[in-house]
Amino acid sequence: MPTSECVFCRILAGELPSTMIAENDRAVAFMDVNPATDGHLLVVPRNHTPDLLSAEPADLSACVLLAQAMARLVRERLGATGVNLVQSSGAVAWQTVFHLHLHVIPRYDGDPLRLPWVPAQGDPAAIAAAAAKLTAD
Amino acid sequence: MPTSECVFCRILAGELPSTMIAENDRAVAFMDVNPATDGHLLVVPRNHTPDLLSAEPADLSACVLLAQAMARLVRERLGATGVNLVQSSGAVAWQTVFHLHLHVIPRYDGDPLRLPWVPAQGDPAAIAAAAAKLTAD
Repeated sequence: MPTSECVFCRILAGELPSTMIAENDRAVAFMDVNPATDGHLLVVPRNHTPDLLSAEPADLSACVLLAQAMARLVRERLGATGVNLVQSSGAVAWQTVFHLHLHVIPRYDGDPLRLPWVPAQGDPAAIAAAAAKLTAD
Repeated sequence: MPTSECVFCRILAGELPSTMIAENDRAVAFMDVNPATDGHLLVVPRNHTPDLLSAEPADLSACVLLAQAMARLVRERLGATGVNLVQSSGAVAWQTVFHLHLHVIPRYDGDPLRLPWVPAQGDPAAIAAAAAKLTAD
């Protein structure tokens, strides 16, 4: 797929809206618009690569370190009591956007998460509220 | 928890049996005894650390790079058509062994995987057969 057709490349280029939370030299973290739980984030490399198998080592390390920072952040800011990191490579593994991404899914006591979740448009106000907590000074 | 009581530390020390598949300087990969799908592997750091949030950056990078190698291996050797990488931090996130581990779950067309899977003792012969394919010269 040309990167011009990749939704995450278009987000990275500023051509599509997103709610950015954090970044490092090779990766960015933004809110998932179809959150599985409150505060669900995606971490993606700046460089287009389809999946885990195809990733450059430096991009993969940068992504997992940013995911770790996001895991700490959702615990501190949102009161998450656990975190799941999920990476899906291949349609058979539930991948739907073919630009490598790590899901950082905050977990809360008693939440009903099962995977795969059924992606559904999240409440924009709830996503914005979580993002505000995650980026507050 | 003292590391002497950690099941993965005991595996790393050779005090408990396991089926090792690969390693790098900071991480090892071995077969999960309760596989969610055929060829399910765990990648763990040699250093004891409870979870994603507590991990040293170098350990985390080593784990994800070894997980990538295992993802490529299950595609090449077992015919997996996709892979899920799953990391669970905290009991609320389904963590049961409190030594950081990444699940490398091979995916196959039509497999019935849902998460969390119900851990059940795998068939030792089937696990050994997958391991033999993964480590064949």
